[in-house]
Amino acid sequence: MEKITTDICIIGAGPVGLFAVFEAGLLKMRCHLIDVLPQVGGQLSEIYPHKPIYDIPGYPDVTAQQLVDNLMLQIAPFHPTFSLGERVENLQRNDDGSYNIITNDGTTVHCQVVVIAGGLGCFEPRKPEIDRLTDFEGKGVAYMVKNPEHFRDKKVVLAGGGDSALDWAVFLSNVAERVTLVHRGDTFRGAPDSAEKVFELAREGKIDLVLKSNVVALTGDDRLQEVTLLDRDQQVSHIEADHLIPLFGLSPKLGPIADWGLNIDRSAIAVNTVDYSTNIERIYAIGDINTYPGKLKLILCGFHESALMAQSAFKYVYPEQKLSFKYTTVYGVSAF
Amino acid sequence: MEKITTDICIIGAGPVGLFAVFEAGLLKMRCHLIDVLPQVGGQLSEIYPHKPIYDIPGYPDVTAQQLVDNLMLQIAPFHPTFSLGERVENLQRNDDGSYNIITNDGTTVHCQVVVIAGGLGCFEPRKPEIDRLTDFEGKGVAYMVKNPEHFRDKKVVLAGGGDSALDWAVFLSNVAERVTLVHRGDTFRGAPDSAEKVFELAREGKIDLVLKSNVVALTGDDRLQEVTLLDRDQQVSHIEADHLIPLFGLSPKLGPIADWGLNIDRSAIAVNTVDYSTNIERIYAIGDINTYPGKLKLILCGFHESALMAQSAFKYVYPEQKLSFKYTTVYGVSAF
Repeated sequence: MEKITTDICIIGAGPVGLFAVFEAGLLKMRCHLIDVLPQVGGQLSEIYPHKPIYDIPGYPDVTAQQLVDNLMLQIAPFHPTFSLGERVENLQRNDDGSYNIITNDGTTVHCQVVVIAGGLGCFEPRKPEIDRLTDFEGKGVAYMVKNPEHFRDKKVVLAGGGDSALDWAVFLSNVAERVTLVHRGDTFRGAPDSAEKVFELAREGKIDLVLKSNVVALTGDDRLQEVTLLDRDQQVSHIEADHLIPLFGLSPKLGPIADWGLNIDRSAIAVNTVDYSTNIERIYAIGDINTYPGKLKLILCGFHESALMAQSAFKYVYPEQKLSFKYTTVYGVSAF
Repeated sequence: MEKITTDICIIGAGPVGLFAVFEAGLLKMRCHLIDVLPQVGGQLSEIYPHKPIYDIPGYPDVTAQQLVDNLMLQIAPFHPTFSLGERVENLQRNDDGSYNIITNDGTTVHCQVVVIAGGLGCFEPRKPEIDRLTDFEGKGVAYMVKNPEHFRDKKVVLAGGGDSALDWAVFLSNVAERVTLVHRGDTFRGAPDSAEKVFELAREGKIDLVLKSNVVALTGDDRLQEVTLLDRDQQVSHIEADHLIPLFGLSPKLGPIADWGLNIDRSAIAVNTVDYSTNIERIYAIGDINTYPGKLKLILCGFHESALMAQSAFKYVYPEQKLSFKYTTVYGVSAF
């Protein structure tokens, strides 16, 4: 039953949550981070640590884990503290405006400001109705591609009609022994040129495309061995499969956060773009979890959001002080 | 009289203008950049190439020039073209909505979209009324500190009461033989803790602080040798000086851009935060040159602005196509 007192409690220790420590630190605000994952880095560390990222400004090429490691180095001067492997369960507003955040392990964090940087962690994959689907989770069924190498030389069935299904079908066609894409329609919701690419690969015989069909059942002993398909004419067919990856998007799993009274707009927390604050005073949302007109789910956008958030949060942490804006290039980090 | 045709003409080849090439490139839009400086990098290369920057996300420590070099590597796959050492002189709107931009060298760039990423380049330092001030420009008088090493073991007089004057007084107190800060008031407009630090250094004898006084005249033969001060009681005094750095902020020098009808708000171009567009169709402004509620003049904010700008500009370059949003982590850069 640890008790922690800090200025800002950041829910989510992904890249945006981590960089928020830096922006807060420049304004002398200390941060405690909570993440349900056992390590920092969010999706980067959990889903694709070894994949290169190309759109981090100034990094022609960096792996997800390198970026996380660099962010940890960058925020080290500000001594953030962490509760990892814990889930936020409760939020209490105190009379003076401050908050207590309580995790499932009973950790209590007293803070002036709450920053939700939950990324996709506040969502879970949508699970289609497939017989025995959950039986094979971790035994052939996965809802996201954490490491494409897991599928090397395997028979992979993808299900879905959106961008994820199209993108991974294209990508895995060079990795897997066989990729089958099953889609209930005959046109795709995803990007036209991705769809075109999939049709092209299908014509070339590099992907099996099964349209107007659904995966309806799974069979196997210890692990997945076969998926059963049903087409619109009620014809049943079977495909050998080592893996099934249903890609039907994410549904919100905000958990207790959903009960805090935050404005939710299509599975994201609505914020304004002046400071990325939510409708509840002293609660901000940054990174992939938030939404606003023009929102792009890019790490670099979350970095920007964290900077504006910190400027705004300052008034709650130091109500008596005027905020002074300084450039690190003049002062260095040790001055902060 | 070169003629260039491109999708997006970016005015300003500083870090934000450079990264805009990347964000545009991901959407298959090609860019031409114009900068009045003879090299890319804007302020980074021109003013402080060897100084470390600490607030670029993922870079615990990077020199300004390294960042520029990395950005150039990052955008290389998109083959940007450049007109360096040229100043934009004219903007013509064509009947089909496209623009021609003409430089002082007669280069004409035909483009669908104009992105102003002019940084501080569209502004010039405010010059106080000091006798013979301009005579000593480049001979002891400078309006910005490009390289602090120029002032090592020199007698430096700073004039001003804002953050720049305070910050450089503190910084140069460790570099120069002698730093004198002259300010017409006796309180400072700059950050309270910077002012406090200056008073502390003055008490310790590490800075000479001359309050309620103005620099009124300069003397010297070939180079600056002495500045003349006048205090509120009309008392005249003289200080030996190798350098005078008047720091009275910047005034807009938008040049022809100021005549384009853009909404200007306190020396910056007003934009909206949905896509960082200006009030004129197909003209965007990103980076230090723009302003909006919450604006911070940080490079990382300009990166974010460039991403949202590119998504919005797409409709002018590819009016027939639906924009498809892709992640570089799935595709790599070569796919774009």
